[in-house]
This record gives sequence, structure tokens and C-alpha cells, in this order.
Amino acid sequence: MSIQQDKIPEATLQRLPVYLYRLQTLQADGVGRVSSRTLAAQLRINSSRLRQDFHHFGGFSRPGQTYEVSHLVERLREILALGAPVHYVIAGAGYLGQAIAAYPRFGEDGFRLAGIFDINPKLIGLRFRGVAVQDIELLPELVGRLGVKLGVITTSPEAAQGVAELMVRAGITGIWNFAPVGLQVPEAVTLQDEFLSAGLMALHYRMQEGERGPEHRR
Amino acid sequence: MSIQQDKIPEATLQRLPVYLYRLQTLQADGVGRVSSRTLAAQLRINSSRLRQDFHHFGGFSRPGQTYEVSHLVERLREILALGAPVHYVIAGAGYLGQAIAAYPRFGEDGFRLAGIFDINPKLIGLRFRGVAVQDIELLPELVGRLGVKLGVITTSPEAAQGVAELMVRAGITGIWNFAPVGLQVPEAVTLQDEFLSAGLMALHYRMQEGERGPEHRR
Repeated sequence: MSIQQDKIPEATLQRLPVYLYRLQTLQADGVGRVSSRTLAAQLRINSSRLRQDFHHFGGFSRPGQTYEVSHLVERLREILALGAPVHYVIAGAGYLGQAIAAYPRFGEDGFRLAGIFDINPKLIGLRFRGVAVQDIELLPELVGRLGVKLGVITTSPEAAQGVAELMVRAGITGIWNFAPVGLQVPEAVTLQDEFLSAGLMALHYRMQEGERGPEHRR
Repeated sequence: MSIQQDKIPEATLQRLPVYLYRLQTLQADGVGRVSSRTLAAQLRINSSRLRQDFHHFGGFSRPGQTYEVSHLVERLREILALGAPVHYVIAGAGYLGQAIAAYPRFGEDGFRLAGIFDINPKLIGLRFRGVAVQDIELLPELVGRLGVKLGVITTSPEAAQGVAELMVRAGITGIWNFAPVGLQVPEAVTLQDEFLSAGLMALHYRMQEGERGPEHRR
């Protein structure tokens, strides 16, 4: 990439996919141009925060002015490195693994399910998104052959560490972990924990806060 | 609550459940006391950030000193308003709804599934965590009767807005939305979007970042 890119702060990074999704929806609806104020109002966030977020890649530099939706979508996809399809594997074909495999947005956003694995013989052979569940022992061969770098762990907490080690040995460099357990991985591996309870607790906390005071947070 | 409570920043709020989970694990392992340094090392986060987070409720005020694990757990649960069981309902009994219903941590963390609803006759009657899927039309009656305040939406994007309106009319005041769509709800309702694609995109972005430079982020 020729453009010098600032390191994007964590909070901004979390919001970029939401902007991308909204802009793609506008694009699908045939909207050609949009202002930061309009986009912020639709997403119900502060418009100066939105402009600050877009500042990292030169979008919405002037308040009030409209920008081409297709250009913003393109820049966001470029920033998020979503130019070429990204392959990923899932370990753990239980409810959550099935839900991830079936989540429609991943495909639309350029992520391709390369394989789904489990140890349970009852699950092996079942198909999700046209991909059959295979024995976890076959994960390294597939990951190596296709050069997959991204692995999702939706196993039990007890199995997660062993699976993470198997993935790392196979060449996986980024792990999205849904098992509520702290994993040990080498420094060079990017680990992202998705702790669903945290989401539910945060919402519950905000609801109490809403009852306590007049100020409302989203 | 008699203790004057600061407003907890968003980023801290996201980390509290992770601390709680780790401390509960220590408790289950029979560990009586812990220092901020040890806990931070186990979670691989900066220990001064951890102390800053705990500062909101008076834990870990002195670096190096150990604190009673059971006391920290109790304070965290108090802050997160997890004293009494919290009931919730799920609308949408597809893969994701089933995964949420079956996620083991919610039960352990004090959240109780009061009902799960769908419009698909094939799903109605199936049982998850001992709770049978019911027709979505029966949601208002159950929510009203049990005084449920928390609703999870795992329907299709197309159905989500209608379901949100049904929930709000029934008395739900907090919505955890997994459908990748912007919902319109009254100001008094707390809305939390869980956009799974955002997690995958953030991980993918960080992996590229790891390849670009020597600095590594988690």
C-alpha cells in the first residue's frame, strides 16, 4: 500500500465495520453521496467522532460536505484489507461453530469458510454453507495446503488450548476465540477473545445505569 | 446501593466481565489472594491499566499488595448488578439463537433464559436448556407475566425491526441485537449491537498490522 497509514485506535477499529455496513446498505439503496452529519444521524453517533474516525483515511475532511458513497466503501475495504477473499477455519462444530459458519455477513464481507472441524463423530460429515465437518486431525493438512491464516475456536473451554496449539503449529497466525478461557499462544500470533458474557453483562449494567440517572448511554 | 459510583468508562466496562471470569476461575482453583501484578500477567494486560480499572470500585489500590479473591468477585458482581438472577428472552431460534441459548457461561453468570421464540413452525417445540421454542406471538404475554426486561434478537435482518417493536411494546428495556441492521428504538431503551463481522474484521486488520511492523497488538 502506497498510502502512509496511521495506527488506528482500538475504538475506531471497532466502529469501521459498522460504517462499512451502513455505507454498503446506502450503496445497495442507490444513494450516491452522503455527508458525515447524515451518516452519523443514521448510526446515532456523534458526528464529530465519526469525522475523527474517518480522518485516519482522509474521508469526511469537511463537515457539511457530501462524499461519494462508493469511494468511502472502497477506502474502508482497503483500510480493512478486504480486497481479496480471506479464508478461515472453524474448530468446534457445536451450536456456536454452526452459528459462525452460517452467519450470512461473513461471506458478503469477503471471508470464506475453508473448513470446519470437530472431534465428535456425530458431527463429522454434516454440512454448513456447503462445507462438511471433518475430523480435527485433518485441520493441519487443510490449513497448510490452502495457506489459511485465520482460525476460529468454538470448542469447549477444556479443548480450546489444545486446539489453539494445533492451529499455531499448522500455520494459523490469528485466532478468534469464543471459548471463555485464557489461551496461551506465541507472541507472534494475534489472539482476539470474544467473550459473549461480557456483552450481556455490559448491556445489563447500562440498563441499571439508565434507571439510576437521566443520562442515557448507548 | 449506598456506595457512590463513578460512571464506568466503556472500555473498562468491557473488561470487567473478563476480570470477573478470571477471578472466579482462581476461586474455583482454591486461590485465596491475588495481586494486581499476578492477575494482569495471567490476563496478559498492562497491570497499571488493570489497577486503574479496579480503581472505580476500590480494588487493588496498592500495587504489590495481595487482595482477597472472594471479596473482589463479590464487588465485581455488585458493580455489574449481578446479585439476583436476570431473566432474558431470545427472539430467533436459528443457529445463533440456539448458540446463545446453549452458551454455558450465561447461566453461571446469573442470566436465566425465560423464553425463546420464533415464527418458524419447524422450530416451535424444540427445547434448548429445557426451554421450548414458542411462537413469537406469545412473547408479550411471557415478558409481561415474568417482568422480563432484557431481550436478545437473533432473527434475520429483515425481521429484526418488527421484533424490536414487539419487545418494546411488551416492556423490554434492553435489547442485545445480533442482526446486522440498525434498529430504531425509543430513547429510553438501551440498545447494544453485537456485530460479529466487526470482530472478524478487527482481527484480520490486526493480523495485517502484525505483518507490517515489529510492534504487536492484542
